[in-house]
Parts: sequence; C-alpha cells; structure tokens
Amino acid sequence: MECQLTIALTEQKKEKPASDKLGFGVHFTDHMFVMDYTEGKGWHDPQIVPYSPLTIDPAAMVFHYGQAVFEGLKAYRNKAGEVRLFRPDQNFKRLNRSLARLDMPAVDEAFMIEALKKLVSVEKEWIPTEEGTSLYIRPFVIATEPCFGVRASHTYKLLILLSPVGAYYAAGMKPVKIYVENSYVRAVRGGTGNAKVAGNYAGSLKAQTEAHEKGYEQVLWLDAIETKYIEEVGSMNVFFKVNGEVWTPVLNGSILEGITRDSTIQLLKSWGIPVVEKRIAMEDLFQAYNDGVLEEAFGTGTAAVISPVGEMSWNGHKMVINQSQTGEMTQKLYDTMTGIQYGVLEDKLGWSVKVTE
Amino acid sequence: MECQLTIALTEQKKEKPASDKLGFGVHFTDHMFVMDYTEGKGWHDPQIVPYSPLTIDPAAMVFHYGQAVFEGLKAYRNKAGEVRLFRPDQNFKRLNRSLARLDMPAVDEAFMIEALKKLVSVEKEWIPTEEGTSLYIRPFVIATEPCFGVRASHTYKLLILLSPVGAYYAAGMKPVKIYVENSYVRAVRGGTGNAKVAGNYAGSLKAQTEAHEKGYEQVLWLDAIETKYIEEVGSMNVFFKVNGEVWTPVLNGSILEGITRDSTIQLLKSWGIPVVEKRIAMEDLFQAYNDGVLEEAFGTGTAAVISPVGEMSWNGHKMVINQSQTGEMTQKLYDTMTGIQYGVLEDKLGWSVKVTE
Ligand SMILES: Cc1ncc(COP(=O)(O)O)c(C=O)c1O
Ligand SMILES: Cc1ncc(COP(=O)(O)O)c(C=O)c1O
Repeated sequence: MECQLTIALTEQKKEKPASDKLGFGVHFTDHMFVMDYTEGKGWHDPQIVPYSPLTIDPAAMVFHYGQAVFEGLKAYRNKAGEVRLFRPDQNFKRLNRSLARLDMPAVDEAFMIEALKKLVSVEKEWIPTEEGTSLYIRPFVIATEPCFGVRASHTYKLLILLSPVGAYYAAGMKPVKIYVENSYVRAVRGGTGNAKVAGNYAGSLKAQTEAHEKGYEQVLWLDAIETKYIEEVGSMNVFFKVNGEVWTPVLNGSILEGITRDSTIQLLKSWGIPVVEKRIAMEDLFQAYNDGVLEEAFGTGTAAVISPVGEMSWNGHKMVINQSQTGEMTQKLYDTMTGIQYGVLEDKLGWSVKVTE
Repeated sequence: MECQLTIALTEQKKEKPASDKLGFGVHFTDHMFVMDYTEGKGWHDPQIVPYSPLTIDPAAMVFHYGQAVFEGLKAYRNKAGEVRLFRPDQNFKRLNRSLARLDMPAVDEAFMIEALKKLVSVEKEWIPTEEGTSLYIRPFVIATEPCFGVRASHTYKLLILLSPVGAYYAAGMKPVKIYVENSYVRAVRGGTGNAKVAGNYAGSLKAQTEAHEKGYEQVLWLDAIETKYIEEVGSMNVFFKVNGEVWTPVLNGSILEGITRDSTIQLLKSWGIPVVEKRIAMEDLFQAYNDGVLEEAFGTGTAAVISPVGEMSWNGHKMVINQSQTGEMTQKLYDTMTGIQYGVLEDKLGWSVKVTE
C-alpha cells in the first residue's frame, strides 16, 4: 500500500451527545475513513473525510448478493486523557479472514491500523471519558459494482465509522437471561459462521425477536448439525465455570473467533485457572447444573466486554445460575479486561495500543 | 396499501444497448420503482422515478447486518409486441416469505404486481425482442436505518430495477460442467437457505470461484448435515432423469423454492412423466450413472430457464451425462417453458400474465 492518506476536515462540527445519552451506535462522529478498491488497481485513495451519506448505485452488489464484512473494536480514553485501542491487529487480521471467505480483496493490516489511529486522533474529542463509555469503531467493506451477475464484485469500498457509546451496564453489571434456540441456526461448518459477514446477522434477527417475545434477552445458538452442542450467545462467545474449571466451545468452523474470547482464555490461564476448549453438549451443561457444579456463566464480546448470564431456558428447563448474580470470576475478568483497555491496570500481555500520549 | 403510485419520467433517456451486446444485468433502464417503509407508518410513497444513485447513510443497517432480500423474474416481449410476466404472484409471495425470515415487513402482493406492470409498461421499449432475450426484473428490499444495534431496522427501502438481458444460450443450449462441492456449504435447515436473502449468495462465491479454477461452471451444493444429499446447482434447482423417472431434491428448509422448479414439476406431470421429490444421495446418483440409467440432468431457474448438465465431478469421479448433449426431455421443457413465457404456446396452466395487449 503505497498510497498517501489524505485528510479533509469538516467545517461544520456536529454537537456532541451528552455522555449519559449515548446509547449504542446511534451517534456518529464528524469524520470517517474511506478507501476504494478497483480490480487491477488495488486499494487506493485512502481518505479521512467529513461524515456524509454514500452515493451508490442501486444495482451495487452489496444490496443484492451481500458481499459485506465488518469489524468492531473500541477506543478507550482514560482520566489521564490517554486514548488506547485494544488488540487492533487482531481485528484487521480477522477482517482479512472475513474478506477471504467472501472472495473479497485483502487489506494491508499495518496501513489500516495507522489510518485508524489517525482517524481516532482526529476525533479524539468525541471519545467520552465517563466510566465504561468508549468510542466504538466500525470498519467495514462493501461491494459496489452495479451488476446482477452472481460473482464477486470488481470494486469495493472500505469505510471506518466511529460512534461514541455509553456504558453497557450503566447501573452495574446485570446478568442476562438467555434462551437456548432449537429451531433457528446461526451457522454451520463450511458456511460463513467463523467470518464476520453481514448475512450472519440478518439470519439471526428472527430468533432474537422471538426470544425477546418470550422474555429472554439473548439467544444461545446450538450447532446446526446435531442441535446439541453450544456455539455462541447472541453476538458473543460463551464461557461456563464448572467445578472450578472453565469450559468454552472449541472453535469448529462455525463459531466466530472472538478477540475477547481469546483474551479471556489467556487471562484465565495466567491466573492458573484451567480452561477447557471442547464441544459442550447442552445436555452435559444441564447435568452440571443439576449436580450443582455450574458456578458461573458469561458471554464475551467487544460491546459488553464480559456479560454475566443469570438464567438459561432450554427445552422447558429453567436454569438459574449463581442465583442470577454476577460471579466472582466473571467480575474479576470484567475488571481486569476493562482495566487493561483503559490503561489503568498493568498490560502484561501487550494488548493495549496507545493512540495518543 | 392505500398509497397512490406517483410517476416522474426522466427527461434524459439513455441510449439502449445493441441486442447482441446485452449480457446479464449490466445495463439498466431509464426508470426504477422506489417505496419506503417507516415503522408505525408502514410502506409509503411508492414512486416510479428516473434511475438514479441512492443517497444512503454509511451506517445504514444493510451494510452491516445484511438485512436484504430480493427477487428475480422477467418480462418477455414477443414478435406480436405483447409483453408478459411469468407467474409474478409467486415472486411476491416468495418475497414476503424471505422478508419474514429476516424479520422485515411484508409488502402488499397485489399492489406490487400492479406497480411492476406499470413500471414495465413505462419501460416497454427497453424489452428486447430477439429470440431468448428478455427484461430481467429485480425487486429488492434493504434496511436503511443508521444504527449499529444488532436488531431489525425500523426503516426500509423497496426498489425494482430493470435490466435488458441477452439470450442465456446465444448459440443454442450448451450443457454445463458442474463440480460437486464437499467443503463449502450453501445453507442448512434452520438457516436462510429457503429464503432469497443477499447473504446466501455472498457465502457461495468462494466455492464458485474455486470451481471455475478447476474448470467447472457451477457448483452442486450438498446438504450441510451429512454432506451427502443433493440440494441445488449454483443458483438453480436441479433435476435428474433416471430410468424414465424424474428425480428432484425434496424441499427441506435449506433449498430455495424455485418457481421454475415448481413449473417444471407441473409440466412434467402434465405430460405423464413420473416426478419423484425425495432426498437424493450423491452416491445413489452415481450408482444410477454407473448402471447406465442416468439419462438427463438439468438445472432450473429464472435466468437460464432450463440449463442442461453435461458433466459432473464428484470426489474425483467424472460423470458424463447423455454424452454431454442436451437431452430430449430437457429440450422439450425449455421449448415449452419459453413458449409459454413468450406467449407463443398455449398457456394451459394460466402462468403467463399480460402486461400490454
Ligand atoms: C457472532 C459473534 N460472536 C462473537 C463475537 C465476539 O467477538 P469479539 O470478542 O472479537 O468482539 C462477536 C462480535 O462482537 C460476534 O459478532
Ligand atoms: C439459490 C437459488 N436456487 C434456485 C433458484 C431458482 O429459482 P427460480 O426458478 O424462482 O428463479 C434461484 C433463483 O434464481 C436461486 O437463487
């Protein structure tokens, strides 16, 4: 990538939302990063420009054949004013894996991290500083060629949007109720489940809506083949503390390789807690629950970081975990992970990347 | 749907492409249909407007979570100048099934057919008349709300684009070579395979590219559970004539319910040919091939109508069907189906819908 990043700053800055009214992904900053791809020419014209609508042909392939992949990470700003990213290299590595799965062109990871740092610096004032708030970062790539042939597009656009987001748990961590889904499936090996592609999410909405109607906040996805093994919870990976040991579904081709998942495993191991990555049958988890050894459960993901699970419903069985309270280990993981993210705890594993001094 | 369709005609008509240079889905007509949806208000403001780029927020959900469904049908213009649609009611029924699967709002099917007829009338001069050419019609619906929350959008846009397309087999029908795919899968029951959603196609491109590299034109998809049973070929349903009987995979939740598939079954039955909808193991098809009773194979879909299969590659076995020639029954199906579509054969089943006299 030889291209020079150009920057055009806006003359009309928007008003920033109050930090207690941020929500998730509804406010967008003044600028965005844009870069174009043309077959034969490669990625070109990286720019930071004022946030503005796209002008795009209605026949653009993204609208028809769903060639669209994305990433999600955050910038954290601490009391000292330092701005940090958390393992951004992992996000751009995964972006390239997702791009490959949809037959889309790879990006230069090192260049993207530099461009992202620049964009975040430009928008520094948009990063909220209240406890638990952050700047959500959404890189994504879409197919732009106007053509109805079912084949990979010859042109693409990569954008990065930024959105200041509120604390996921504004009033302290609150364990969620999850519904184990037996009919709808999210992904299957050989499909696109281990890539962060738009279509995976579209397919998951119906089950989520139905779970909400039943009084549950998230769906627990089972494997597509036997409808038996635990895969993920909503848009999070999932962990269970059973008899002092931590279980998480082994990566199998249909589970997204969460960066928070990987970080959680590394942290737990560094604390001497045994982590077992394996196929987890819902039946076996239920057995552990009945034996009184299912001690804690939580999801992991960029948005909520660590999200305690307080209740699960499976085939009419209701499982209440740790009396619907956040477990001790779950809390410690949350505190440690966010401590590293905000740069207030020692970063032994070198995960935190400073954007500004 | 109480809304009145408004029409704004363009003042700058494009030049029409030569009928021998049409290709598929690369030329678009002068106008398009657009309609908006807002939660609480429903579908509103249906309009026929000049074909023009969309102005759309980069945070629009379609780019991130893939809420996008589409349809594909054609308008046919015969020598007498009559313009016809083929079973358009089935396309809008299926559109509503696809919309429901992605938690998107239903459209009024009867209104949509009327709006489509109007649009096609406006663009009548764009419909080529040469043998095998037609006007491809692409209705689609996309999520437009700018928000990163993983939930159904509250706003949508429905569009219909039109594209004059060339004869699929400009030089007579040519049997295709297909590669039986063992690693990638298209869909799984409980997923979105039986809906016409954008993400299904994105996930299929990689396998298609790899098949091309091996010298095959299309991929034959096997079931995701056992990688054993035949599902579809590329973007077509598939049929096999075995010992005088016709086999086609039974609809199982992961196969798209093709309108050409249904029409083919009805035609064959009306001719007294036995049609068996069942699970077809690739192994059993190979056995039939070795026994010398696999007589013909073909795909069905709106684009090619009937597409003969001349060769299949499965686990290193090469199967040459009917000496790579178009079978007699396959040809008769093509001739009959297109005859009905163009209004030159009797339409006993009431499939053809006149747009103009
Ligand atoms: C389906 C799915 N699983 C898991 C995760 C967690 O991944 P990460 O920890 O990288 O945010 C995400 C993304 O947030 C996701 O979309
Ligand atoms: C995956 C898939 N299967 C089958 C078909 C055939 O459906 P139809 O006959 O309605 O065009 C299509 C659409 O063309 C398709 O996209």
